Amino acid sequence: MKELKPKLLMTPGPTIVPERILKALSMPIIHHRTPEFTEILRDAAGRLKPIFKTDNDAFILYSSGTGAMEAAIANTINPGDKVVSIVSGKFSERLRDIAIAYGANVESVEFNWGSEIDVEKIKEKITEDTKAVTIVQNETSTGVRNPVWKIGEITKETDTLLITDVISSIAGDNIQTDKWGVDLCIGGSQKCFALPPGLAFITVSEKAWNAIEKNENRKFYFDLMKYKKKFPQTPFTSSISLLYALEESLDMIEEEGLENRIKRHVDNAEFCRTEVKKLGLELFPEKEEIASVTLTAIKHEKSEEIRTKLKENYDILVAGGQSHVKGKIFRIGHMGFVGRSELEKTISALEEVLGDL
Amino acid sequence: MKELKPKLLMTPGPTIVPERILKALSMPIIHHRTPEFTEILRDAAGRLKPIFKTDNDAFILYSSGTGAMEAAIANTINPGDKVVSIVSGKFSERLRDIAIAYGANVESVEFNWGSEIDVEKIKEKITEDTKAVTIVQNETSTGVRNPVWKIGEITKETDTLLITDVISSIAGDNIQTDKWGVDLCIGGSQKCFALPPGLAFITVSEKAWNAIEKNENRKFYFDLMKYKKKFPQTPFTSSISLLYALEESLDMIEEEGLENRIKRHVDNAEFCRTEVKKLGLELFPEKEEIASVTLTAIKHEKSEEIRTKLKENYDILVAGGQSHVKGKIFRIGHMGFVGRSELEKTISALEEVLGDL
Repeated sequence: MKELKPKLLMTPGPTIVPERILKALSMPIIHHRTPEFTEILRDAAGRLKPIFKTDNDAFILYSSGTGAMEAAIANTINPGDKVVSIVSGKFSERLRDIAIAYGANVESVEFNWGSEIDVEKIKEKITEDTKAVTIVQNETSTGVRNPVWKIGEITKETDTLLITDVISSIAGDNIQTDKWGVDLCIGGSQKCFALPPGLAFITVSEKAWNAIEKNENRKFYFDLMKYKKKFPQTPFTSSISLLYALEESLDMIEEEGLENRIKRHVDNAEFCRTEVKKLGLELFPEKEEIASVTLTAIKHEKSEEIRTKLKENYDILVAGGQSHVKGKIFRIGHMGFVGRSELEKTISALEEVLGDL
Repeated sequence: MKELKPKLLMTPGPTIVPERILKALSMPIIHHRTPEFTEILRDAAGRLKPIFKTDNDAFILYSSGTGAMEAAIANTINPGDKVVSIVSGKFSERLRDIAIAYGANVESVEFNWGSEIDVEKIKEKITEDTKAVTIVQNETSTGVRNPVWKIGEITKETDTLLITDVISSIAGDNIQTDKWGVDLCIGGSQKCFALPPGLAFITVSEKAWNAIEKNENRKFYFDLMKYKKKFPQTPFTSSISLLYALEESLDMIEEEGLENRIKRHVDNAEFCRTEVKKLGLELFPEKEEIASVTLTAIKHEKSEEIRTKLKENYDILVAGGQSHVKGKIFRIGHMGFVGRSELEKTISALEEVLGDL
């Protein structure tokens, strides 16, 4: 295929993929049904667990993150089951919509995009017959980070499952699956792992397995019982090249150290917020305390013009707003291997663009 | 990750991935929601159509081939719908099992593995209320090629949909989606496209769209209406690196010419059969006329010993038998970019191994 001229990817996924990972991608294919590949699968799944801070089972799925969202719902929710969905952005809407597609009786607890969730309001809706609560820990569409542990406190000692999307924060933010009481924790590859898209991750608690075993409606490709039964092999063909890349990403995470990596994300996020505020810009999250550590969402009525100028004059790609905030916000990703120098370059270009407006 | 020592992949998928494709995989990531990437998506989907010999819509899904099998069923079959499944191997069993998982009332028409299907027997089962017939054109588990067109003759002028798996033959065998009357035609990446696993393809006829639009039960990740609505963009994140590889594979297919490529597969298959017969071996398909052109399945009571010796002494990987023919057959893949020289090397090693037994 023809040469590509990539921009500097400052979007909240896909993010910059380092050379080492790109190189791993192009390693020759070995057969997936061999002891050699089984070892890779076992190793990768095992190394995901400390990143999720969990002792639960961890699986790699061959799909985008949405596939793992579907897996969480398809495996646990029967038609008519009551699901409480906490909705405050595009991806929490998606999780709710998947529950609806699987016939759940969904109670949607909605909050304005960018605002803090009201735990008391959510608590009121969770009753003994609530099968699951869905929440997005890091809303990529708004740059808001939600306090999952506060929901875990409600569901932990009950039969209610806590389904949490950490797609755009896992391996960047301090995700504490077990401590928070998350039963099904959903991750993706093209965010803080700095991988190409195409892999998704899911961790499954004992409480979740109990629900899954009772569910006769798990469908097929995302049927987690099949993955459990075949582990460390997989029920269907593995995306071999992407697994090589995952192994390389895990090596890099371990070399840096997870806690160092989390601190780097926290520091870079703070740097980004400080710098954009210095430029006179306003953050989209209503309070700085709820701002994501992997991306920064910024209000601006000329967001699309800013994005175009950054792209065309500086070869820098930032993301725009989605749905009803399209044109009203723009989003800078600082995840994976995006470093201070890329952030400085972006802020400096942004300053010039704002001067031109 | 650590260096791999790949064997010569003579398995019926994954198959040898040429250097050019491996190189394309490691191109830098561009964002999938850009005009540049949209152009790649449009181009790839457009170039798939002549390979399927179809004017129907063609979509790329981000999953293994099984995901596209599930898409075909999930989008068309409502609980209670009558489905006739032609079953004569592991993958036709899978297609049937997916229909069962979606609540279909499945009439399974079974034939011994390796035998020719009896079209009259199938025809008897297809009635006016049959929603779909499922068939695998190229049974990877048996090395048998099924005459899909004979089923198409039965379903073409009716409301019954013809769902066909060509995962291990598309881009190698002469697949004639429209001429045969296939409504949902399912392909995969790690077979004759010589790509890594992780992409699946599906073509959708007008007749299929009519059924899909009426289906309220399409679920989510594989909901083809979402793919149609978003085309040439995708509803969820594209596997960007694998798309680069697909573009490269399509370039290579076009450079060779599809008809030349099909002829090469036919010739290589004939060569392989002739050579193994010369070695005194018996083919697994009951008649040579029904043998696959992308793999050769061979009977041998010491299949596993043969495979081990080929692997350990010659660094050549061939596949074994699956399910009840495990240990009774072995399978040589000659798909994608496997050439005469790799086949000759394999046959020569096989001759030596047989001499040792």
